[in-house]
Amino acid sequence: MSSVYKLIELVGTSTESYEKAIENAVAKAAETLKEISWFEVVQHRGSVKDGKVEEFQVILKVGFKLVD
Amino acid sequence: MSSVYKLIELVGTSTESYEKAIENAVAKAAETLKEISWFEVVQHRGSVKDGKVEEFQVILKVGFKLVD
Amino acid sequence: MSSVYKLIELVGTSTESYEKAIENAVAKAAETLKEISWFEVVQHRGSVKDGKVEEFQVILKVGFKLVD
Amino acid sequence: MSSVYKLIELVGTSTESYEKAIENAVAKAAETLKEISWFEVVQHRGSVKDGKVEEFQVILKVGFKLVD
Amino acid sequence: MSSVYKLIELVGTSTESYEKAIENAVAKAAETLKEISWFEVVQHRGSVKDGKVEEFQVILKVGFKLVD
Amino acid sequence: MSSVYKLIELVGTSTESYEKAIENAVAKAAETLKEISWFEVVQHRGSVKDGKVEEFQVILKVGFKLVD
Amino acid sequence: MSSVYKLIELVGTSTESYEKAIENAVAKAAETLKEISWFEVVQHRGSVKDGKVEEFQVILKVGFKLVD
Amino acid sequence: MSSVYKLIELVGTSTESYEKAIENAVAKAAETLKEISWFEVVQHRGSVKDGKVEEFQVILKVGFKLVD
Amino acid sequence: MSSVYKLIELVGTSTESYEKAIENAVAKAAETLKEISWFEVVQHRGSVKDGKVEEFQVILKVGFKLVD
Amino acid sequence: MSSVYKLIELVGTSTESYEKAIENAVAKAAETLKEISWFEVVQHRGSVKDGKVEEFQVILKVGFKLVD
Amino acid sequence: MSSVYKLIELVGTSTESYEKAIENAVAKAAETLKEISWFEVVQHRGSVKDGKVEEFQVILKVGFKLVD
Amino acid sequence: MSSVYKLIELVGTSTESYEKAIENAVAKAAETLKEISWFEVVQHRGSVKDGKVEEFQVILKVGFKLVD
Repeated sequence: MSSVYKLIELVGTSTESYEKAIENAVAKAAETLKEISWFEVVQHRGSVKDGKVEEFQVILKVGFKLVD
Repeated sequence: MSSVYKLIELVGTSTESYEKAIENAVAKAAETLKEISWFEVVQHRGSVKDGKVEEFQVILKVGFKLVD
Repeated sequence: MSSVYKLIELVGTSTESYEKAIENAVAKAAETLKEISWFEVVQHRGSVKDGKVEEFQVILKVGFKLVD
Repeated sequence: MSSVYKLIELVGTSTESYEKAIENAVAKAAETLKEISWFEVVQHRGSVKDGKVEEFQVILKVGFKLVD
Repeated sequence: MSSVYKLIELVGTSTESYEKAIENAVAKAAETLKEISWFEVVQHRGSVKDGKVEEFQVILKVGFKLVD
Repeated sequence: MSSVYKLIELVGTSTESYEKAIENAVAKAAETLKEISWFEVVQHRGSVKDGKVEEFQVILKVGFKLVD
Repeated sequence: MSSVYKLIELVGTSTESYEKAIENAVAKAAETLKEISWFEVVQHRGSVKDGKVEEFQVILKVGFKLVD
Repeated sequence: MSSVYKLIELVGTSTESYEKAIENAVAKAAETLKEISWFEVVQHRGSVKDGKVEEFQVILKVGFKLVD
Repeated sequence: MSSVYKLIELVGTSTESYEKAIENAVAKAAETLKEISWFEVVQHRGSVKDGKVEEFQVILKVGFKLVD
Repeated sequence: MSSVYKLIELVGTSTESYEKAIENAVAKAAETLKEISWFEVVQHRGSVKDGKVEEFQVILKVGFKLVD
Repeated sequence: MSSVYKLIELVGTSTESYEKAIENAVAKAAETLKEISWFEVVQHRGSVKDGKVEEFQVILKVGFKLVD
Repeated sequence: MSSVYKLIELVGTSTESYEKAIENAVAKAAETLKEISWFEVVQHRGSVKDGKVEEFQVILKVGFKLVD
């Protein structure tokens, strides 16, 4: 039978960069999901404190194969 | 490590209002998820019967922190 | 033959709430259309007068079955 | 000369309803702007605490005439 | 209490058609979810090999009722 | 005078394919409209029963010339 | 009772400009609809022949009050 | 330090054309802002009276450099 | 050096199905491009003649690797 | 075999109007492409100098048939 | 009374990264606004010179609380 | 005659960052195009292997002047 994949939506955060925020979200998802193969960024946002960026936040979808 | 959040997509319904429909969806999600902190509405729709609104339906995303 | 439905776009108004604005639009449409079964909200807007909301306006699509 | 209007983007909040959240934002804007004549909702969202909706939040654009 | 539904996002694949790709995704989801009642297609895409379509891929959301 | 066209929004359904669903909607519209010349698909969706696709549903806009 | 408006979607054409294309569509609609009060442009497109613009085409929605 | 720009959203109007409506909005903004360097159109709309276009309305964003 | 891909936008047509329309566009592109590896559908539309679908038209983007 | 078309994305400019900007882009494209048959506008923007519109800029897609 | 926030739209620039471009825009806004608490990225773009990226440009909305 | 620009769509990749992915795509395009002056990011995505980000992928449009 043909492959079926699932997409879940996560928010990763980092005080350094969006790339780190994505890596954090992917690493967290990988703790329970073994077959992650791609991601798609939905939105870039962040929090500000005392006039400085406090945290970069990225909303992303992570795709993985559903095993039989 | 930085926080990671998950977003799930729900449809809440109510015969009264969209606010009730959102509250119903959040309450249902809260039965199994302890860390819900925000929601974003995706679409407002509803069903009609005999020329009257039967049910308000709201598609929303509910966000919660993934615990370590 | 399979069912075919039609969607028409309306603007409902109310001085009270968006739910009332939707109900007003659906009631008006139901005067001439017997088979309305659902609606989808396209936009929420409104008018303001003297610093107060004067009217809630909702753009919605109303769907109904085309009878044979 | 023809009229020119300006749109500003606000977030209104309410523990009760989106209509109240809009009214709160419009009332706040009306403290300094005299010529507000319409608004358009951009997004509906909210915060959740202990499994219950804590606050309804509405992002809206408020339009007003630029006086000569 | 009013019904609450959940939407999950899947990618179905097929070498034949998008309808087959949708059916494959729905069938896979139905292995663990008993109450699926509708789906909405998000995107149509596919892979190409040696100048020929290798696989039709459809991203879709599958909706089902959350049982009490 | 230059030509003017009108677009109406329909939902076609079929148990077989989206192409059949489109053809069903176009055929229904053609019963009363003589000058249909094009269509644009707005959304692909469908219903599911007992873990199988029950019906393919396509929302489309049908364009036709307004005769003088 | 509160006012209800209807929106219909038209395509106006002109060999001169988009403004003329809009005016043509509005004029055509006004032959049968007495209460048109606004329009919203959906898309600007056109046809080309022998390397020159042949016709400007504008898709627009025309709004009018439904009389009681 | 690198340049920072601000975008404000305006609605320009004209009884003649969208170009005039844009020029009116830009001229009005230029009364108080010295560093406007570009604009982006967000929406084209208009009002209708007695079956004729009364006013072309254009929603646009105007960008200008924030001076140090 | 890292791979770079290019996307071109095509319209494929078929009297039978959207899958055939996609295959026709991919086959045409493959006459001059050797490294096509994926496609993404942008829009489904079509032409109608005498109340019947004359042609299914699909706008798609075709992606291929730029060779060094 | 069924026809295949290609869409390319251009930016036309004019100090006079968007119609002229479109005509300029189409004329430029027609120098090398013989089969252009339609265009679709993607965005209207422009540059401002000394508080006046300097140039109208239009992003458009131009479609033409791929010859065999 | 409930809190009301305002969103303003800025363009930040940097020759290094999008994170720096965001930080530059936030820092500039913080010179006059004391209560900035979040930002949302609207678009990523940039300028190119002699075949190299000259500047990363980010359009973002910055949100801050309106003080009473 | 007024300037005309062309936009082409590329996918840049990098194991390090999105900025590098953009620079790779721009550098590749600059091998054959001399007049590139800006780019606009369309989407951020990437591939994952063994629970780690393998590659950052950015879809972007690159704009350049068409020389006479």
